[in-house]
Amino acid sequence: MNFDGTKHSHCRYNPLKDEWVLVSPQRLSRPWQGRVEDDDSGDTNNNQQSTNPLCPGAIRGKAGQPNPFYEHTFVFDNDYPALLSDIAADENEKNNDDDLFRCHVARGVCKVICFHPDSNLTLPRMTLDDISHVIKTWIDVYQDLASKYQWVQIFENRGDMMGCSNPHPHCQVWATDFLPNEARVKHRTQKDYFTKHNGNVLLLDYIKRELNEFKKARVVIDNEHWLVVVPYWAVWPYETMLLPKRHVLRLSDLTDDEQIGLGQIMKQLLIKYDNLFNTSFPYSMGWHGAPTGDLSNEDCSHWQLHALYYPPLVRSATVKKFMVGYEMLAQAQRDITPEYAAETLRNLSSEIHYKDKKNT
Amino acid sequence: MNFDGTKHSHCRYNPLKDEWVLVSPQRLSRPWQGRVEDDDSGDTNNNQQSTNPLCPGAIRGKAGQPNPFYEHTFVFDNDYPALLSDIAADENEKNNDDDLFRCHVARGVCKVICFHPDSNLTLPRMTLDDISHVIKTWIDVYQDLASKYQWVQIFENRGDMMGCSNPHPHCQVWATDFLPNEARVKHRTQKDYFTKHNGNVLLLDYIKRELNEFKKARVVIDNEHWLVVVPYWAVWPYETMLLPKRHVLRLSDLTDDEQIGLGQIMKQLLIKYDNLFNTSFPYSMGWHGAPTGDLSNEDCSHWQLHALYYPPLVRSATVKKFMVGYEMLAQAQRDITPEYAAETLRNLSSEIHYKDKKNT
Ligand SMILES: O=P(O)(O)O[C@H]1O[C@H](CO)[C@@H](O)[C@H](O)[C@H]1O
Ligand SMILES: O=P(O)(O)O[C@H]1O[C@H](CO)[C@@H](O)[C@H](O)[C@H]1O
Repeated sequence: MNFDGTKHSHCRYNPLKDEWVLVSPQRLSRPWQGRVEDDDSGDTNNNQQSTNPLCPGAIRGKAGQPNPFYEHTFVFDNDYPALLSDIAADENEKNNDDDLFRCHVARGVCKVICFHPDSNLTLPRMTLDDISHVIKTWIDVYQDLASKYQWVQIFENRGDMMGCSNPHPHCQVWATDFLPNEARVKHRTQKDYFTKHNGNVLLLDYIKRELNEFKKARVVIDNEHWLVVVPYWAVWPYETMLLPKRHVLRLSDLTDDEQIGLGQIMKQLLIKYDNLFNTSFPYSMGWHGAPTGDLSNEDCSHWQLHALYYPPLVRSATVKKFMVGYEMLAQAQRDITPEYAAETLRNLSSEIHYKDKKNT
Repeated sequence: MNFDGTKHSHCRYNPLKDEWVLVSPQRLSRPWQGRVEDDDSGDTNNNQQSTNPLCPGAIRGKAGQPNPFYEHTFVFDNDYPALLSDIAADENEKNNDDDLFRCHVARGVCKVICFHPDSNLTLPRMTLDDISHVIKTWIDVYQDLASKYQWVQIFENRGDMMGCSNPHPHCQVWATDFLPNEARVKHRTQKDYFTKHNGNVLLLDYIKRELNEFKKARVVIDNEHWLVVVPYWAVWPYETMLLPKRHVLRLSDLTDDEQIGLGQIMKQLLIKYDNLFNTSFPYSMGWHGAPTGDLSNEDCSHWQLHALYYPPLVRSATVKKFMVGYEMLAQAQRDITPEYAAETLRNLSSEIHYKDKKNT
């Protein structure tokens, strides 16, 4: 099919903000699954196995094929993807010359990864073996898509409050033939730092200074291979960054030991999060690493792999920070300091989940 | 008082994103007014005059002084401001040399403008005379703060869904001795365009092409002096930009006629918004114009004044677009096209508010 902006995924450029937006008109035919505000679905995940499309054996989407009776993770193509892969090359697919009405075709794929057959089991309560399957699946899917696409965005929206349309534990992967805004900016800033500082990696210098100069004041938890820190510049109240201590460009470069260490520290961090307000802590999280596809031919050694957790809660299980008004129009604003947030998280148990505590 | 990062408002730099965050630790002493999720306060504004701190005569904040019995608008200093004005000059107030841990003091003021004595009256249902008082007050407050501060951000959070902590019709003004992110970027992009295009103003060229070349496909409404358009690059489903057709740098440069036209078009736009889903349409809105304070000595003729409306609803009064996961980690995404949104808004009545229709 040839490119048609009223039907096919594309990006448009905002010349005032120097940013792009992804437009996915093909999704208009999607049956609506968005959260309805003020319904009383609450925190409980009482999905019937038969009606929840993410469960083993459930019938799903347009194809009407049943899911396999999977035992660990399960990967499938999103039935209503925000990106299309089969748009034919077209002379209208890019108009870089126009400084006001600029757009380009957006080719890509959207996948879903179910973490576990059990709809009620979130990552912090899974076994380390369960989590290792999630990490292996991330790496497999990443490696597969990285051969074709410039950017492979793995992300998880957890909880109603984060617009998660299905409480079954899962994440998404959107891969694109272009660098999205965040990737493009981080590609530039890390390269600039690298050049200015004679080949030092921004995030490795950052780790070093957090650990030594600042005496772990913002560190939540660390182990041999990994570090969780509330960044000096964190925006969300309890935002954290999770990153390897070694110079690692991409998820697919992690050693077996680093993968094991990752499972351990993720479980610990997520137990802390849930224990903070005795709730299944909502967040969006995702992985950022060096670009892929044809961009992996370029030197990407200025990159350091890292994951970001953006949780909205600030005071309790129901009071969140709104990024509205001033934040949307001027600049993000926060009340509690990153140092305070780090100390609070540090002091919480990373071993016993509040739900397991109640029963003992 | 000397600068203390654990107590005083300051900005921290994110070297990965090339963006700043405003940190306001002094707000920790604020009595909590944030929205609690899933309460059932709903759409009704049944504030007791005596307990709602924004009402005429109410006792408010730390000072314990009663509000005047105001008849139009009422301006006061936020009792728990995100910005402090009285931080003494300090050698530690800026560390531009540090590429990883960079910060600067954030001096400024936060004001609140009540639009009307009646807690239940929103802008679209006010008379044009009421609205003219709001516009005059915007301009007065703007002019006053513009003499001292580089950026004066007027913004309104409307509705529960936008974290608005009080349904009484009001907006806020945060003025700062620095350009916040959005301002800094727009200052640069408009200047670059101006230089490249021999002194043409980005947004004036944009208006011209929307009206002529694109035959108003994205125009929602216009009058002699003003235009409302769903920008080609809009991110929120029904996002609009409101801007004067003449080259105007700042809110304080509007002629009397332009102020009258502004009141008319704002009322029309907000009636359309409310009529879209038969609800008091939630949004964040705000004004962007040329920088002020000492920056007004620079040539700012690349600037064009504009207001932005960012409403979250997408399908109904309760279904909103979540900017989460992919949006936070990669790039904003939308389903309906800006052209579709503009057509939908265009076809709604701008004269009769749905609440007034019901009663006829
Ligand atoms: O000042 P309010 O209305 O209590 O608070 C609201 O607006 C502020 C400025 O946009 C935001 O920082 C807050 O998160 C939001 O809840
Ligand atoms: O794909 P979902 O889970 O239905 O949708 C959710 O995640 C997407 C990607 O972050 C967002 O664009 C949607 O707004 C959000 O509701």
